[in-house]
Parts: sequence; C-alpha cells; structure tokens
Amino acid sequence: MEVIESLQNQKVKTWKKLHTKKNREKLGLFLIEGVHLIEEALKAQMPIKELIIEVDKEIPHEWQVSNLPHVYVAEKVLRDICETETPQGFAAVCELPENKNIPLEQGKFLFIDGVQDPGNLGAMIRTADAAGISGVILGDGTVDLFNGKVMRSTQGSLFHLPVQKMNLEEAVQLCKESRIPVFGTSLTGSTYNAIEPQENFALIMGNEGSGVQKELLEDCDQNLYIPIYGQAESLNVSIATGILLYHLRS
Amino acid sequence: MEVIESLQNQKVKTWKKLHTKKNREKLGLFLIEGVHLIEEALKAQMPIKELIIEVDKEIPHEWQVSNLPHVYVAEKVLRDICETETPQGFAAVCELPENKNIPLEQGKFLFIDGVQDPGNLGAMIRTADAAGISGVILGDGTVDLFNGKVMRSTQGSLFHLPVQKMNLEEAVQLCKESRIPVFGTSLTGSTYNAIEPQENFALIMGNEGSGVQKELLEDCDQNLYIPIYGQAESLNVSIATGILLYHLRS
Repeated sequence: MEVIESLQNQKVKTWKKLHTKKNREKLGLFLIEGVHLIEEALKAQMPIKELIIEVDKEIPHEWQVSNLPHVYVAEKVLRDICETETPQGFAAVCELPENKNIPLEQGKFLFIDGVQDPGNLGAMIRTADAAGISGVILGDGTVDLFNGKVMRSTQGSLFHLPVQKMNLEEAVQLCKESRIPVFGTSLTGSTYNAIEPQENFALIMGNEGSGVQKELLEDCDQNLYIPIYGQAESLNVSIATGILLYHLRS
Repeated sequence: MEVIESLQNQKVKTWKKLHTKKNREKLGLFLIEGVHLIEEALKAQMPIKELIIEVDKEIPHEWQVSNLPHVYVAEKVLRDICETETPQGFAAVCELPENKNIPLEQGKFLFIDGVQDPGNLGAMIRTADAAGISGVILGDGTVDLFNGKVMRSTQGSLFHLPVQKMNLEEAVQLCKESRIPVFGTSLTGSTYNAIEPQENFALIMGNEGSGVQKELLEDCDQNLYIPIYGQAESLNVSIATGILLYHLRS
C-alpha cells in the first residue's frame, strides 16, 4: 500500500489549492473534510474523484471504498490539507457540479443577496433544508457555496436541496411570470406575522450589513420586517431566515 | 504620555490571563475588545477598570476618556492581548458583575441548558434581547458568558438584559411557584405552533448534541418540537431559539 508522506507531493499541492474559489473553478473540483460530509456526499451520489484516507484509520464499511478511487496519506498530510483541526481521518475531492437551473414555477424558495459570512450562508442553507424549501438561489456577491466553512456549516444540507447561482433580478422576474409572490426583507417593511403562510413564495435575505439591494426591494410584492422588541440593533441573518421561513411555510 | 511597549509588562500579562474563565473568576475581571462592545458597556454603565488604547488611535469624543482610567499601548501589545484580528485600537478591562438574581415572578425567560459553542450562546442572547425577553438563565455546563467569542456574538446584548447563572431545576421550580408555564424542547414534544403565544413563559433550550436534560424535560409543563420538513437532521440551536421565542412572544 502506497502512502503519500510528503507535503511536497504534487497531489497534496493540488488539494491545498482547492481552498480558494479561483482554483476550485479553474480545476472544476472541491474538497470536503470529515466523516459526516463525505457520507452525505455519497448518499447524494456526488461524483467523488478521490477519497483521501489517513493511514491506519478504519474506513466505514458502508462506504464501499473499493469501488471508489482512493489514496492513503500520512496524518501530517491530512492535517496540512484540511481546514478543521480534527478532520477525523478523511477528506474527499469531488467534481464541482454544473450550475443547474432550478425551475421557478412553483414551490418555496430562498434567495440570498450578498451574504458574506460563510457560517451564516451555511446555516441558512441548513435551515432552508429543515424548512422543506424547494431550492436556494445565491445572488451575485454571495460567498461561494464550496467554501469549506460554508459546506461544514450546512451540515450536509448542500447535498439535500438544489442550490444555484443566478442574478436575483432575473430570478425575481421569473417568479413574477409564474405568479410566485416575492417577499423582500427591509427595516421599512410590514411586520412579518401580518402575512399569511404561503403555498408558493420566494423570500429574499440580504447582506449582513447593508441588507437586500434597494433595486430588488422595489421589485418585490411585499417587504417584511421582524420587530425588535428589546435593545438589540438587529437579528443575525441566519436566525432571521429561520423565523421568516418557518412563519411563511407553517 | 507613557506607552506600554513590552509584551513582558506585568499589566499585559494580566490582561492575557483574562482569556480563561478560571483567571477571570480569580481576578474578578473580564476583557472586551472593539469599539462597539466598549460603547455598549459604557451605555450600560458597566464599571470599566481600565480602557486600553492603541497609541495614535482617535478616541471617540463621547467616551469622555478623561473620566476613565486609561492606558496607552503599542499596536503589537493590543494585537497580543486581543483575540480578534482587527481589534480596532481599543480594549477594556471590566469588573465581573455579581450574579444578580432575576426575579422569576412574571415575564418571558430563556433558560439555557449546557450550550457549548460560544457563537451559539452569543447569538441566543442577542436573539433573546431582540425578542424582548426579560432575562436569560444559564444552567450548569453552559459556556461562560464572559468568554470573548460569546460576548462578541451577543453584539452587546449581554449588557442589555439580565443574564444569570443558576441551577435550572431550581429555576423551573421557581417558575412553577409563580405559575409561569415552562416549555422544554424535545424531539418527542408537541409541534411548537400548536401552542398559543404566551404572556409569561420560560423556554428551555439544550446542548447542541444531547438537547435538554431528561430530568428537566420531565418537569416542564409542555415540551415543544420544531418540525423538520426536509432532509436536515436538525436546526442550529440559536436558529431554533429564534423560531420559538418569536412564536411564543408574538
């Protein structure tokens, strides 16, 4: 059994490159870390290009590793290529999926306008999954879905529901053509719980600092606001997403 | 003007010690970083023991710094004592407040049972503040409120509403004596939105992995559950807190 021991190995150098968006897009690959994300990727039948196994780790039987391209590495190599401090002995290189079109004809959608914090984006996708949302659209200026921290924060939900990059003005127009009501979020909007739950909807959540772009808000059917009853200046965007999605779909 | 330049300075060594709970409790002090938290502490009239100012930084006029004990330090000293990469030129040493009793007689309360992640606890306190909650009780095994990441994640809300450490079984008993309904959270509970909004309540949220302790759940008037409509295994605890608090107080 061959084991990659050197941090100078060409494969190791390539894997490390996958921590930047530019290189992920150039190479058409992304890197996941840890047992849970790998299991979710396998369940979702993501094409795994190479499973990276720390030597001496016990491989879960149900992974059927003999059917997967795989390579063994020394512990220091795995530590070097992973962002987490405890990568649990496994990482995997996957093919970047094509940006498939989510049909905006009927369903419940979350549109994300320029959210920057990877932990927030991941938590929003996880919450959208929990709330049974049909698909998530990432507008321009939103942090990359295949960023390691985003993927870890989704806890695997990135493999459970369609997530697509798209210009949000176009997405809003498509909703209008399908008569799907579009709700923006704005400090000058209506109190959210005055709105009835909806069979079909698109909810737009905005950047942590500046919120949803003004031009988009003007195109929405209605803009919603979560009242602040105490002295906090605002809610975290992922928590606001949870409150609004669970209200709209209830 | 004297400027502390050395990382070996005794004050600098003491400030760095405040990153651990043990030393905070021993010295009766805690350390905050950044302009926003300092402003919130000043607004809340927290006793500031020493304001730490990076030399050459412009001090906000409204801080009335001449009335505060303060000390100037070199940039490398501030960087050394702070956890954030961009501490914005300011930190402050504050006196650890006494653990004041929150009267559990009427109001809306959040009880936290063993939440471990500092970002989660901070977001929960910020959300409780936004939702106009009367007070937060931290049960045994919950991460320390004066942990730097917890305080930063509250975005200042730790200074806006009372937060007290207390054994949760005692807190639940006090609620019962005051006829405040206590709601636990459990996978085997009732769907949360079958419950009407409440004038007075205590909501118990539990540890990220194991949830609320079984003994506590048995003492609750009712246990609540947020349905998962998709394939996610769970919701993040701070997001679940937002959904439940905004539902119960609406």
